[in-house]
Amino acid sequence: MTPIDLNADLGEGFGRWRLTDDEQLLSVVTSANVACGFHAGDAATMRRVCELAAERGVRIGAQVSYRDLAGFGRRAMDVPPDELAAEVAYQIGALEVFARAAGACVSYVKPHGALYNRVVHDEEQAAAVVEGVLLADAALPVLGLPSSRFLKLAEQAGLPTATEAFADRAYTEQGTLVPRSQADAVITDAETVVERSLGLARFGMVTSHSGARIPVRARSLCLHGDTPGAVDLARRVRARLESSGVHVKAFV
Amino acid sequence: MTPIDLNADLGEGFGRWRLTDDEQLLSVVTSANVACGFHAGDAATMRRVCELAAERGVRIGAQVSYRDLAGFGRRAMDVPPDELAAEVAYQIGALEVFARAAGACVSYVKPHGALYNRVVHDEEQAAAVVEGVLLADAALPVLGLPSSRFLKLAEQAGLPTATEAFADRAYTEQGTLVPRSQADAVITDAETVVERSLGLARFGMVTSHSGARIPVRARSLCLHGDTPGAVDLARRVRARLESSGVHVKAFV
Amino acid sequence: MTPIDLNADLGEGFGRWRLTDDEQLLSVVTSANVACGFHAGDAATMRRVCELAAERGVRIGAQVSYRDLAGFGRRAMDVPPDELAAEVAYQIGALEVFARAAGACVSYVKPHGALYNRVVHDEEQAAAVVEGVLLADAALPVLGLPSSRFLKLAEQAGLPTATEAFADRAYTEQGTLVPRSQADAVITDAETVVERSLGLARFGMVTSHSGARIPVRARSLCLHGDTPGAVDLARRVRARLESSGVHVKAFV
Amino acid sequence: MTPIDLNADLGEGFGRWRLTDDEQLLSVVTSANVACGFHAGDAATMRRVCELAAERGVRIGAQVSYRDLAGFGRRAMDVPPDELAAEVAYQIGALEVFARAAGACVSYVKPHGALYNRVVHDEEQAAAVVEGVLLADAALPVLGLPSSRFLKLAEQAGLPTATEAFADRAYTEQGTLVPRSQADAVITDAETVVERSLGLARFGMVTSHSGARIPVRARSLCLHGDTPGAVDLARRVRARLESSGVHVKAFV
Repeated sequence: MTPIDLNADLGEGFGRWRLTDDEQLLSVVTSANVACGFHAGDAATMRRVCELAAERGVRIGAQVSYRDLAGFGRRAMDVPPDELAAEVAYQIGALEVFARAAGACVSYVKPHGALYNRVVHDEEQAAAVVEGVLLADAALPVLGLPSSRFLKLAEQAGLPTATEAFADRAYTEQGTLVPRSQADAVITDAETVVERSLGLARFGMVTSHSGARIPVRARSLCLHGDTPGAVDLARRVRARLESSGVHVKAFV
Repeated sequence: MTPIDLNADLGEGFGRWRLTDDEQLLSVVTSANVACGFHAGDAATMRRVCELAAERGVRIGAQVSYRDLAGFGRRAMDVPPDELAAEVAYQIGALEVFARAAGACVSYVKPHGALYNRVVHDEEQAAAVVEGVLLADAALPVLGLPSSRFLKLAEQAGLPTATEAFADRAYTEQGTLVPRSQADAVITDAETVVERSLGLARFGMVTSHSGARIPVRARSLCLHGDTPGAVDLARRVRARLESSGVHVKAFV
Repeated sequence: MTPIDLNADLGEGFGRWRLTDDEQLLSVVTSANVACGFHAGDAATMRRVCELAAERGVRIGAQVSYRDLAGFGRRAMDVPPDELAAEVAYQIGALEVFARAAGACVSYVKPHGALYNRVVHDEEQAAAVVEGVLLADAALPVLGLPSSRFLKLAEQAGLPTATEAFADRAYTEQGTLVPRSQADAVITDAETVVERSLGLARFGMVTSHSGARIPVRARSLCLHGDTPGAVDLARRVRARLESSGVHVKAFV
Repeated sequence: MTPIDLNADLGEGFGRWRLTDDEQLLSVVTSANVACGFHAGDAATMRRVCELAAERGVRIGAQVSYRDLAGFGRRAMDVPPDELAAEVAYQIGALEVFARAAGACVSYVKPHGALYNRVVHDEEQAAAVVEGVLLADAALPVLGLPSSRFLKLAEQAGLPTATEAFADRAYTEQGTLVPRSQADAVITDAETVVERSLGLARFGMVTSHSGARIPVRARSLCLHGDTPGAVDLARRVRARLESSGVHVKAFV
């Protein structure tokens, strides 16, 4: 059985503001998507999260975003490709310095928020993000949605890729996420989330919105860190996976 | 005779705004202090300047600054040391990615504007900048004012250091810069600037405000890139140095 | 004959950076679209432009924008309507303080850049901008493109509206602007721009891309202030209009 | 007996981040120092806080700050006076639009954080803040520390002034605040804070750090809104004041 990675967004405060319980989450996840200053994540926070992650052997990923502190990177932006590529590289480089200082490195890249959603379909922006990653490191793995343009272009460019799934999101029969605009797009019942995590990790299967069993291939499960009870739910997911014999292990 | 380095601030536009004639200046200087996004310098500009610099064999330096786009980094700020250290490292890391992509590297660090002036005397902030440099690279040279706290602490921390002088700034008899608040602090006559450059490069001497000949040791001369006629003046300085047998060569 | 207004974007520097020759342009135009800090325009510049405009009797308009200094407001953003409405009102209020201090007032609102283009078609954002204007002042005129959703919704909300035309932009036979992505979208020959200005102001007619004479109703002509020769061209346009008996007069 | 005002900082979130429990605090205080976007406070939050405050009859004050989201306005900055004055006016104008839309107005101005501390002694910056207030409204009251340069200059400029005291801060025998850098600068025991509030409101007296009873004249008490238990403590203070016959009432 393939091991499963658990990733979460971390370091998503900014200056005086805190959002994610970085210390607790780092005792659960195997991969930390660290905010790089464009949607969240001041430099001191980035440094601290890298130190904590390195101590615990958690992989450090660059959670790259549109430049949008006011909108937390959740507002799609028509950034010209050359600017977007450069901004992606900028963020990776900034994080790299803290990862390296902590005795680790940036192990992968994952786009955040509106950029994550945009590069599922937007050829131009997906290519720009890939170009940004290549600028930083031609062998840097990327993490994304199966069948996204982003992963496809990354693969073509020779980057290692990994797919992720969401245990707390509803899936269509085609294996895509039910848009957040629809009711029931997000699954809030903790026990259901735990069970779906196990199904995804163990069998690569999940029950779709319509009740069908569908395959969803994912080397990583994304856990949300910014909701109430996030740490507790993450712990339960990991405990259930491990007690069921699933090997929880970083994907890089 | 020791060779002399010519450094200038480059890439000091931001988005739609341009300030420095990067392409022309890169044909004159041997070291480019590249703005890293905190007082100026968007990511796409950083990338382009690094490519141009690498093509011409010009050394790339990280021109680190307070986070202050509105004030162009010219307003002193009481940034707590841990934040300042992290912000310095962040900027170096971001630039490194573009330097490396261009086949070069970040060869040195020079603080900008108010931070440059502050670390001449401010022990705490000087130490924080040194810490930031060390986070990024424990062997990264720094460029600064002779007898500044910054250079002293950098030296103590084992960082290579280099000193710079300003041919267009008046000096006191003690060898410090006449503050900009005083009249005649800045020398605007081009021919005088050219002559002072030669005196500094060849003999390590300059005429003080009061008319005395004083020694000013500097491995690098700072040329200003954001004034009208800047490129032309820089060219004249370099031509005079070379025609007088001074070897113009990067300090790293 | 209806008088014609001449409007231009002003105060589009930020901190150290300058873009528009505010003083010269204010001696030509009758309406100043003043940048309000979101895409350009620091507070001190806003104050100065308002003082200069008030001295010359030039009307002050709030040039509201997406929050995007790095992109100069030229990148479309999916800003949620409630945030967009509040940001529009925020910018108007900030400008109002300087207009009032100069003995004038904010006389109208004109969206900038990507927001200007977006509200031509985007119902939701157009409604949000109208809501923002209403928050600030339920009787504040707005300036925009004829047949845009923005002007239509503004009218329905009881706001006074005025239309503008561009003498340096190519028009389709349907009277819409040829997109900038197409060749020949922008007319650069100064004499042609001057002639088109006269045709628009005097007869409400312009020659389309395909050579047809088409009607374009506009109470205001937009002059560009950020191109080389902008001031000179603006002067020639005004001189030709006045020598041809067109009355140049603010629309509010 | 003079009535006492209770003021607190509100609306100090930014985008995705929340800090103050605005709704609960607005049921306790009589004056709301609303963040205006420079250290905290996005436009949508400003609008909402103004609406809630207006509904409850709470006075709306502009909590003006250095432009410093990353530092939450807590880092002193050497902002040139003309820029500082303009930035203060900008913030007041932006807030005014939301206050007015809610059927209220900006009733006073209070500097935030490092600016608050700076204008206690710094003549130049104090004068700049006063100039900024005057730009916005020549009759706008200001709230500050007794015997600060800011209040003195505001008075000389003809602005109404009001003084405030801090029940949770230690005072020297001279009636100034014990700097936060010293131990015991902040009083954390809730019952002590409640008792000091009563002493300040009823008798204008407080026990100094050294145990002496000293007079502290204040028309307003500042309650902190961003600490755990803040709402509860604020409620207890108000209840004790009212049960002791102190009239809790806005100072404007």
